[in-house]
Amino acid sequence: MGKLVIVGTVAFDAIETPFGKTDKILGGAATFIGLAASQFNVESAVVSVVGGDFPQDYLNLLADRNVDISGIEIVKEGKTFFWSGKYHNDMNTRDTLVTELNVLADFSPVVPENYKDANVVMLGNLHPLVQMSVLEQMHKKPKLVILDTMNFWMDCALDELKAVIKKVDVLTINDEEARQLTGEYSLVVAARKIQEMGPKYVVIKKGEHGALLFQKENVFFAPALPLEEVFDPTGAGDTFAGGFAGFLAKTEDYSFENMKNAVIYGSTLASFCVEKFGTERMLTLDDQEIYQRLNQFKQLTQFEIVLENN
Amino acid sequence: MGKLVIVGTVAFDAIETPFGKTDKILGGAATFIGLAASQFNVESAVVSVVGGDFPQDYLNLLADRNVDISGIEIVKEGKTFFWSGKYHNDMNTRDTLVTELNVLADFSPVVPENYKDANVVMLGNLHPLVQMSVLEQMHKKPKLVILDTMNFWMDCALDELKAVIKKVDVLTINDEEARQLTGEYSLVVAARKIQEMGPKYVVIKKGEHGALLFQKENVFFAPALPLEEVFDPTGAGDTFAGGFAGFLAKTEDYSFENMKNAVIYGSTLASFCVEKFGTERMLTLDDQEIYQRLNQFKQLTQFEIVLENN
Repeated sequence: MGKLVIVGTVAFDAIETPFGKTDKILGGAATFIGLAASQFNVESAVVSVVGGDFPQDYLNLLADRNVDISGIEIVKEGKTFFWSGKYHNDMNTRDTLVTELNVLADFSPVVPENYKDANVVMLGNLHPLVQMSVLEQMHKKPKLVILDTMNFWMDCALDELKAVIKKVDVLTINDEEARQLTGEYSLVVAARKIQEMGPKYVVIKKGEHGALLFQKENVFFAPALPLEEVFDPTGAGDTFAGGFAGFLAKTEDYSFENMKNAVIYGSTLASFCVEKFGTERMLTLDDQEIYQRLNQFKQLTQFEIVLENN
Repeated sequence: MGKLVIVGTVAFDAIETPFGKTDKILGGAATFIGLAASQFNVESAVVSVVGGDFPQDYLNLLADRNVDISGIEIVKEGKTFFWSGKYHNDMNTRDTLVTELNVLADFSPVVPENYKDANVVMLGNLHPLVQMSVLEQMHKKPKLVILDTMNFWMDCALDELKAVIKKVDVLTINDEEARQLTGEYSLVVAARKIQEMGPKYVVIKKGEHGALLFQKENVFFAPALPLEEVFDPTGAGDTFAGGFAGFLAKTEDYSFENMKNAVIYGSTLASFCVEKFGTERMLTLDDQEIYQRLNQFKQLTQFEIVLENN
C-alpha cells in the first residue's frame, strides 16, 4: 500500500447550472482528488492552504476519510480561495464569474515530513512553481508523479509549466489544452509531442467524450458513462485524476496495463461526481455503488470478438 | 449465411479537404455500405439508380466483390446523382457545395426477385418513401431492418420518415440528428424516445467520438480509433453501417451481445475508410489488415479489472 501526496486547491465554489445554483460550498481540486483517492484506503495527504473563514467541518470531511490534513495550512487572517462559475445549457462550457485567489496568492506548500517518501505525487492544477516546489521537497524521486494543469498557466506561466512538465511521469490535460500546448489538432500527434516534453504517459480528458491514455504506440480509451443528465460537471476532472492516482498508489503497479484500470476507476468515480452539486455525491458513495458502476463500465465497453489470425 | 439487401445512392462525389481535392469520383451511401458488407462474404444486392454517364468500371468494382448489381437501374438518358462538399479544417464539419439529384429525383427502387426473402435489409440514407417502398417489396418480414437517415428528411419529410422508422429494428443516426428528431439533448434520453417510435435498437454515431448502441437498459460504446490524421471522412458513417449490417447478415445472430461485435466491426471498417479519398482505401483492404485493426480495437478498449462483489 503506497502513500499519496496531493497538492491542489481547497476552496469555496459557487455554482450555477441549468438545474439550480448553490451558495459557497466545498470545492477545490485537492478536495475532489482527495475524496476520490480516499475510496482506495491509501495513506494520502493534502497539501494546500485555506483562510480563517474555512469551516473546520469541511476539513473534517477529509480527515474522517483518512486523508491527512496536516499539510493544509490555515491562514487565520486570510480568506479562502473562491471560484464561481455558470454552466451553459450544454453543460460542456462555462463562464467563470468570480475568481478570488485570496490566501492562494502567497501559497508556499509544505509537504508533511512523513509524506516526503510517498510513492505517488498528484500535482493538482495550481501555479507550476507551486507544483515544482512540492516535487523539490520529496526526499527521493517518487515512483509516479502525475500533473494536472489548465490553459490559464499556458497563457501566463508557460516556461515554468514546461519545466515542471519535464519532471513528471503522467500529464493529465483536456483535449483543448493538449491542442493549445502542442499546436497540434490531432490528439494522437499532440500526445506524442507531449511525451517528447517529458511525461512517459499522457491522459487526454475529453469530458463527456471520455479519456485517452497514451504511452508510445499504446493507446487506451475509456468512455464517460452515458448519463441521462449531467447535474454539475464541477470537479469531474479532478475526481478522475484522484481515482487514477488513488488506484495506482494502492496497487503500486505503474505499468500501462494497470494504468488502463486506473483510467476506468477514474472514469467510474467521475461519473458519480457529476450527479449532484460539488462534492455532495462523493460524500455518500459506498463500495457497493462503485462495484455496480464498474460493472456498468464493463457492459459498456467489453465485447467478445475472438480474433483468429488468418 | 444470410442475404443482405442494401438500398441507397450510387453516386459521383467531388471532395475537398485540407489535404487536397478530387474530381468526380465513386461515391454514394450504397457504394460504401456495399463495399463494407462485401468484407463478410455475404450474399448482398444493391438497389439504386445511376445515369448513362456512370462508368461500368465503377459498377464492376461492386460486382467483382460479389455484390449483386442487378438492382441498380441504369437510366441511359439520365445523369448520376452528384454531391460535392468541402471539409473545414477540423474535419468534423463540411459545407455542401453542390447537390444534383438527377436520376435520383424519380427513383423507384426495384428489389431483385431473389432478394425479396433477404434476412437483413439495410436502408441507406434516401427519401423515406423510397426506403418504405423497398420494405413493402419484401416477401416476408426480414429478420432485421436497419435504417440510416439524416436531418434533411426531418426538415422536409418528417411524417414519411416517422412512418418508416416505425417499421425498422435498428435506427442508425448521428448525435445532432438524434437530438433534432427527439428534441432531447441527452443522448440517453434521445435513444429512449427513438425506441418509443419503433426501433428496438438505436445506434448513435458521434463521428470521431465513437458510436453508442442502445436497447432498453443496455448500452454499448465503441470509440473511433484515434488516428494521426483523418484524410477524408466521406462515407465513414455508411461504411460503419455496412460493416454493422454485413456482420449481422453473416452471423445471423441479432442479439444485443452480437450487435456489440457488429458495432466494433463497423467502427473498424470506418477507421480505414477515412484514411484516403472516397472509396480508395476500401478497395485495397484485405483480411489481414482488418484482423490487425480489430486487435487494435481490443487493445484500445479492453481492460482487466476483475470484479468481486463485496
